[in-house]
Amino acid sequence: MEMKTEINPWGSMEVKDYAKLRDEFGIQPFEPLLRRLKEPHLLMRRGVVFGHRDFDKIIDAVNRKESYAMMTGLMPSGKFHLGHKILAEQIIYHQQTLGANVFICVADIEAYNMRIDDMEKLREIAINEYLVNYIALGLDPKNCDFYFQSARSRDPDKANAFYRLAGMAAKKVTFNEMKAVYGEITPGKVMSVMTQVADILHPMLPEFGGYKRVVVPVGADQDPHIRLSRDIAARFEKEHKFVLPSSTYHVFIKGLKGGKMSSSDPYSYIALTDDPATAKSKIMKYAFSGGRDTLEEHRKKGGIPEVDVAYQYLYSQFEPDDKKMQQIYDDYKSGALLSGELKQILVEKMEAFLREHAKKREHARKQVDKFLK
Amino acid sequence: MEMKTEINPWGSMEVKDYAKLRDEFGIQPFEPLLRRLKEPHLLMRRGVVFGHRDFDKIIDAVNRKESYAMMTGLMPSGKFHLGHKILAEQIIYHQQTLGANVFICVADIEAYNMRIDDMEKLREIAINEYLVNYIALGLDPKNCDFYFQSARSRDPDKANAFYRLAGMAAKKVTFNEMKAVYGEITPGKVMSVMTQVADILHPMLPEFGGYKRVVVPVGADQDPHIRLSRDIAARFEKEHKFVLPSSTYHVFIKGLKGGKMSSSDPYSYIALTDDPATAKSKIMKYAFSGGRDTLEEHRKKGGIPEVDVAYQYLYSQFEPDDKKMQQIYDDYKSGALLSGELKQILVEKMEAFLREHAKKREHARKQVDKFLK
Repeated sequence: MEMKTEINPWGSMEVKDYAKLRDEFGIQPFEPLLRRLKEPHLLMRRGVVFGHRDFDKIIDAVNRKESYAMMTGLMPSGKFHLGHKILAEQIIYHQQTLGANVFICVADIEAYNMRIDDMEKLREIAINEYLVNYIALGLDPKNCDFYFQSARSRDPDKANAFYRLAGMAAKKVTFNEMKAVYGEITPGKVMSVMTQVADILHPMLPEFGGYKRVVVPVGADQDPHIRLSRDIAARFEKEHKFVLPSSTYHVFIKGLKGGKMSSSDPYSYIALTDDPATAKSKIMKYAFSGGRDTLEEHRKKGGIPEVDVAYQYLYSQFEPDDKKMQQIYDDYKSGALLSGELKQILVEKMEAFLREHAKKREHARKQVDKFLK
Repeated sequence: MEMKTEINPWGSMEVKDYAKLRDEFGIQPFEPLLRRLKEPHLLMRRGVVFGHRDFDKIIDAVNRKESYAMMTGLMPSGKFHLGHKILAEQIIYHQQTLGANVFICVADIEAYNMRIDDMEKLREIAINEYLVNYIALGLDPKNCDFYFQSARSRDPDKANAFYRLAGMAAKKVTFNEMKAVYGEITPGKVMSVMTQVADILHPMLPEFGGYKRVVVPVGADQDPHIRLSRDIAARFEKEHKFVLPSSTYHVFIKGLKGGKMSSSDPYSYIALTDDPATAKSKIMKYAFSGGRDTLEEHRKKGGIPEVDVAYQYLYSQFEPDDKKMQQIYDDYKSGALLSGELKQILVEKMEAFLREHAKKREHARKQVDKFLK
């Protein structure tokens, strides 16, 4: 790579939070694995995916042409936005580039117990917001096991095996272990967690093709779930030939205003269903800027790319060309590029992406109708 | 009935414990329902089945020729003995006499989480000890939904609907409600209870034939489970058209030595696989007697049928003729019948029953092989 490492806006985050994850819990840095991947994804090259557990074992499996599973879940709520896109692109990379068996779970039992007690609405959001956007982004639905926790499979062997695993997982964990990870425990939380453990481990069951490595790409805050699943996997030695699930970790992508993306505030995110004009307006008005207070000050001191949301979005998702990205960094840092100009670069990329994505989504919608029959 | 009511050996139990259940928790006495049943079962006539919740609604359904479900579970452990026979006879009565849809659940997820962590062994016990004896006692396996919690159905609609119900039930109960019924809570206990709630309520789901009354015959100590299931059923009003499950309650049948039947002590019970000679020896040697210390004292004061195990077994299961039973009571009470003679009456009945049952079990074993294919 020819880029200077400081252009990575998560440099400081990595030093503090990620080092803690690494040192306390044994998450490994992702960077040393890059040279072992023929075509590492942009998110990996740019350090958005910053850490892993046992992902080297997945690369070994890929190189030996052994099958492996990529497992992920989605909690159906609100609009599909740029934060969800980060995960979707990893799913698609595993499927299209590395050849994974893809398992995508709609965590509707969890959502029902924790948030929205309307299974029909959950189903509708999962399909029309998530699945449609996954396919539009490049997921091949035919080579993908997309399922609902509340109805695992039309194959009774698979359905029964999945729920049996959830039922048995409960014996492998203590109440206090659960409390340490999840805080206050409710019956609904126990049910959600046991189902999630089954989600992560079941691709290894004979009914689902048998022993294979499983990788779960997650945000850094999800590591406690991964650790618990790994602990439980190890305790099934009498019943099942499980291997500890692997994981990768991506950084927290900021909301437009610099905080979290929140489904209750449509100005905190760009949804993939936003029309280009709306997206432009959101970026120009709300995107948290690393520019200085006055033109003079900006020209003199330069912008602060590390905190600039437009910069972060370009870096993580919308400017794949390393040379151009370096140029943007250098120009913004030097003060040659103004905050409004930086936003305009993102706006153009975003408009083109959303226009193209809208077309792809129309096509995807037809595939979904076929797929669900 | 021409019998005097005092010949019922649970008279005292009813006065104390049952009155408490009735007054504190709303269990109704069964006796007033007897005249509404064309052929009440011996266990009902004799007061072994002593109480109920909403069983009058089940009788209404039977009289209107509406379908209803009889739901029960078995925890596979140890030998099938006279205590299990009490429940089996009620199952068969519901199926053969009242025309119920019979659901029998093998609580293997519960057993796995609470007792034996060997699913294969649990399966073997459930089939070879329980199912075979049920059929030998008169159950028609073709008209019975016998299933394992760990593999609800070969029909994916049924399997998914069952586990979905368990997953959703967790939202309908608080941690403190569970604690009040089950004491210390473990993740395995939460999973067991939610599965049990699904067991009791799922016959009402559309996938299982839709709305119908469900009755669960249980021992008096099981009422807290019934109450919790009724509470949860009522909280599904948004999602499902559930009616509160009905229940009947039977008394605790004493072990041979007067205490509990314990699977770890083969001299505490008569197993239905005991050969007649073994059963005779167990009864003569171990059956707790209500006879007096000396022949003289016995002739003078008479025996105490209320505490005599042989008397209780004859009364509850082996002497269906009311006149003969009254005679036995009168003779024992007066001292004309000695304890050994009373035991001998039971031994003869027991030997005949076990001989006949062994033959029926051989036949049942062949049916099981066919049934499970």
